[in-house]
Amino acid sequence: MTVPTVSETLVRVNYSETDQMGVAYHARYLVWLDIARTEHLRLCGASYRDLESTGLRLAVSEVAVRYRQPARFDDRVRIRCWVREVGSRRITFGYALEHADDGRLLATARVALLALDRSMALSRLPAEVRGLFRPVADPVPLGLRGASADE
Amino acid sequence: MTVPTVSETLVRVNYSETDQMGVAYHARYLVWLDIARTEHLRLCGASYRDLESTGLRLAVSEVAVRYRQPARFDDRVRIRCWVREVGSRRITFGYALEHADDGRLLATARVALLALDRSMALSRLPAEVRGLFRPVADPVPLGLRGASADE
Amino acid sequence: MTVPTVSETLVRVNYSETDQMGVAYHARYLVWLDIARTEHLRLCGASYRDLESTGLRLAVSEVAVRYRQPARFDDRVRIRCWVREVGSRRITFGYALEHADDGRLLATARVALLALDRSMALSRLPAEVRGLFRPVADPVPLGLRGASADE
Amino acid sequence: MTVPTVSETLVRVNYSETDQMGVAYHARYLVWLDIARTEHLRLCGASYRDLESTGLRLAVSEVAVRYRQPARFDDRVRIRCWVREVGSRRITFGYALEHADDGRLLATARVALLALDRSMALSRLPAEVRGLFRPVADPVPLGLRGASADE
Repeated sequence: MTVPTVSETLVRVNYSETDQMGVAYHARYLVWLDIARTEHLRLCGASYRDLESTGLRLAVSEVAVRYRQPARFDDRVRIRCWVREVGSRRITFGYALEHADDGRLLATARVALLALDRSMALSRLPAEVRGLFRPVADPVPLGLRGASADE
Repeated sequence: MTVPTVSETLVRVNYSETDQMGVAYHARYLVWLDIARTEHLRLCGASYRDLESTGLRLAVSEVAVRYRQPARFDDRVRIRCWVREVGSRRITFGYALEHADDGRLLATARVALLALDRSMALSRLPAEVRGLFRPVADPVPLGLRGASADE
Repeated sequence: MTVPTVSETLVRVNYSETDQMGVAYHARYLVWLDIARTEHLRLCGASYRDLESTGLRLAVSEVAVRYRQPARFDDRVRIRCWVREVGSRRITFGYALEHADDGRLLATARVALLALDRSMALSRLPAEVRGLFRPVADPVPLGLRGASADE
Repeated sequence: MTVPTVSETLVRVNYSETDQMGVAYHARYLVWLDIARTEHLRLCGASYRDLESTGLRLAVSEVAVRYRQPARFDDRVRIRCWVREVGSRRITFGYALEHADDGRLLATARVALLALDRSMALSRLPAEVRGLFRPVADPVPLGLRGASADE
């Protein structure tokens, strides 16, 4: 099986996600990133549900998002997701969100997660989990301050 | 009236905000930052509702959050909020989230907003709005990559 | 084109939808009903986005949900949706939510919507909108108090 | 201590709760009911956090809401909450949501909860929990179909 280095997940903006500006509310993007991350793991052969049942938790430790164009109700948004870096305790994902119909870049993002154990204490990523991921260079510049500095 | 340079807003973690890790879900922090920002504006003499009725919109253009300690159901969280920078089109806020009972630092964050007009086109912050804010140096180091580099 | 009398929409429970009981939080079901309703309209030939652009708003006036079995993270949920009744100002939908893999009934629901105009005043459903729908008898008993009494 | 029969909890509509109709999205009301229920328990001497730590879970089994007037961004909403009925396994709450400034009735609601144990199996409400509540007749007619029929 060829492991995808950049996965693509589609979401459609639902009515609950709009705000009175008439666009998707900014906090919802973090949920989309989460959905895309779960799909990315699945494509890499890891079900996050199964990972949790072994006692591992991946907790978000840092988030950075740059919003470029609004998404609107009923728009389909394509979330491109990749692994930027895998450390012994930490994994960092990169994201580009695009309008599915015209390809416009809507947002870029970076999310870092830490491995925790069942009791929520810092832990190590099991070797077999680390081995699932193939870090790649950003296919799209994230345009986030500091994003490339120390990663 | 003395304009507060650092405002404080309390939220209590409700059940809908928890996830199956037993902690407040990370995307909810962005909503708390929004609530604190609205209260900060109110203390500075600006109702965001009134600002919108004049045609101004403040749209989030960038978000960065560092999560340090989890918040749990029924915890009260104190959100300290301040203005870091006011430009002609952009305003940046800094935040420190603390556990209200023991003062533990839960998260730090930075949010940048852009002024838009009614048609969601880039606009300028009206002088009277800019004049409401008194930017201050971060009372708490944000610990966000790039946070201090270019602001 | 054959208009479907009962549509089916799939959603997958994402992490943000879980709570610390380890199940999908009950308020999220209302969002799923909304998503299914939008898809039902689409299958009937009506885009809710387009309807809104003509000035029509369909505002939820009543909701009733009976929760029977929990849905869990990563579960796929099939939402069966149908029109129960179409009046001059009001349309009522029925729903059955099932676990997509084993068909277990998770919840049943009823949602009534009122037609409003752009200024949020009560309005009439345009004849061409009313004509899109084919009310059917509940394919699944809703088990909601009063559900069959006056509809 | 006098146990309140009808508690009052205030929430303020935040931006994330609005939708593109310019009003509070209907699913958010269920979160407000949850917040009010937690406060009602607290006033009755029961912390829901503490109840959960004893192994008890109160899971929503039925919800009915009638929406009467929209709530808007920054509005303060007063949630009046009371216990309608306490059974051996089930407790039912009634609610009236009012605009805090002018008292307008925004919505009425009924929520039934079932006692579950740690493994999410049906359980009994402990006698000491049952004893905390003083069911009262609805101070406001709920106007929900079937609401008074069998309770």
